[in-house]
Amino acid sequence: MEYEEKTVSKENVFDGNIIGVDVLKVSQPDGKEATREIVRHSGGAAVVPINEKGEVYLVRQYRKPVEAELLEIPAGKLDEGEEPLECAKRELKEETGLEAKKIKHLIDLYCAPGYSSEKIYIYAATDLVEGEPCADEGEFITTEKIHINKLVEMVMNNEIPDAKTVVGILLAEKIVKGEIKI
Amino acid sequence: MEYEEKTVSKENVFDGNIIGVDVLKVSQPDGKEATREIVRHSGGAAVVPINEKGEVYLVRQYRKPVEAELLEIPAGKLDEGEEPLECAKRELKEETGLEAKKIKHLIDLYCAPGYSSEKIYIYAATDLVEGEPCADEGEFITTEKIHINKLVEMVMNNEIPDAKTVVGILLAEKIVKGEIKI
Repeated sequence: MEYEEKTVSKENVFDGNIIGVDVLKVSQPDGKEATREIVRHSGGAAVVPINEKGEVYLVRQYRKPVEAELLEIPAGKLDEGEEPLECAKRELKEETGLEAKKIKHLIDLYCAPGYSSEKIYIYAATDLVEGEPCADEGEFITTEKIHINKLVEMVMNNEIPDAKTVVGILLAEKIVKGEIKI
Repeated sequence: MEYEEKTVSKENVFDGNIIGVDVLKVSQPDGKEATREIVRHSGGAAVVPINEKGEVYLVRQYRKPVEAELLEIPAGKLDEGEEPLECAKRELKEETGLEAKKIKHLIDLYCAPGYSSEKIYIYAATDLVEGEPCADEGEFITTEKIHINKLVEMVMNNEIPDAKTVVGILLAEKIVKGEIKI
C-alpha cells in the first residue's frame, strides 16, 4: 500500500495561542470522502539530561488537560523560526538551569498522529553544568534528579505516564548501558 | 510543590466526532490567571502483539495530520462505555485479524499532556492465533510482522516516529529479553 489522502476542503474552526484546529474533507483510495479533525501544533523539543552517575533530571509540573502533576523530561514548544536544537538547549536551561557541553539528537516523535500534527525532537544531554533555572512567568515547575534504574522501575510501575518521557527514559537506559553511543 | 490549577471559566470552542476543544481560564499558585487550550479525547487502547519468534505485528496507515504513512502498533479509540481491555482486543482483531490467548496491561500513556486529555492504555498480547482482519469501512491498513531486534534498530534510525509505538517496541524488547515478565 502506498497512498495519500488528498485534501478536498479545509475549514479552520479554532485558532489559539498553542493550538489551532482544522476540519478537512479528504479523498480516500476507494474514492469516498472522509472527515479529518486536525490539531495544528508548531512542534517542540525535549531533552534527556543524564549525568555521569546515571541520574536523569526531570521536571514536575501540573498539567491541566489531565488534571495531574506529571514528572517529565524538560521540553517545550518551538518558538517561531526556532531550530529544534536551540529550543532543546533553551528549555533545558530555563526549566532546570542546566547547560550541556554535549547534546545529541536521538529520534523524533509524533505524539498523537491520529489527530495532531505535533512532532517532538528528542535529544540526550551529557557533560552537564548546573546553574539557576529561569522558568517563564506562570510556569511552576520543580526539578528532580533520579537514577535511571529507579526511573525504569517507575515506568514499569506506571508512575510516569508522559509518553515522550517514557521514550526518553527507555533510551537513556540504553545510553547508560552503552547500547547507544552518543 | 503540590498544587492544582482551578478552573475559573470554560468555553467550548469546538465539538467534533473525535475531539473537542475547550478554552479554560485557570487560577495559578501566584493568584494570577492563565489560559489553557485543551483538546478533549475519550482515550484509547493499543496492543503490542508478540509471537513466539520474537516478531511484532504492526499496522501501516496514512495519517493525515502528519501527511505520512506510519508503522504503528494496533490501536484505536475507546467506544463509549468500552473498557480499555475490550478495546485492545477489538482493535487487535479488526486491524490484524489476531486473537490473543494472553493479554496483559503494561502501562498507560498521556500522549500530549500539555494540551490533550488523551490517555492510551498499552497492552502486550502473546499466544497469538492468526485470522482475518475486519477493518472498519474507510480504514486502509496493512499488517507487517517484524522481528523485535530489527524494530529496535528502526526506532534508533528514526524510522518509527509514532510515540506509543516506540514505547510498545522498547517494552516488547524487555519482554522478549525476559526483563519484564508477562
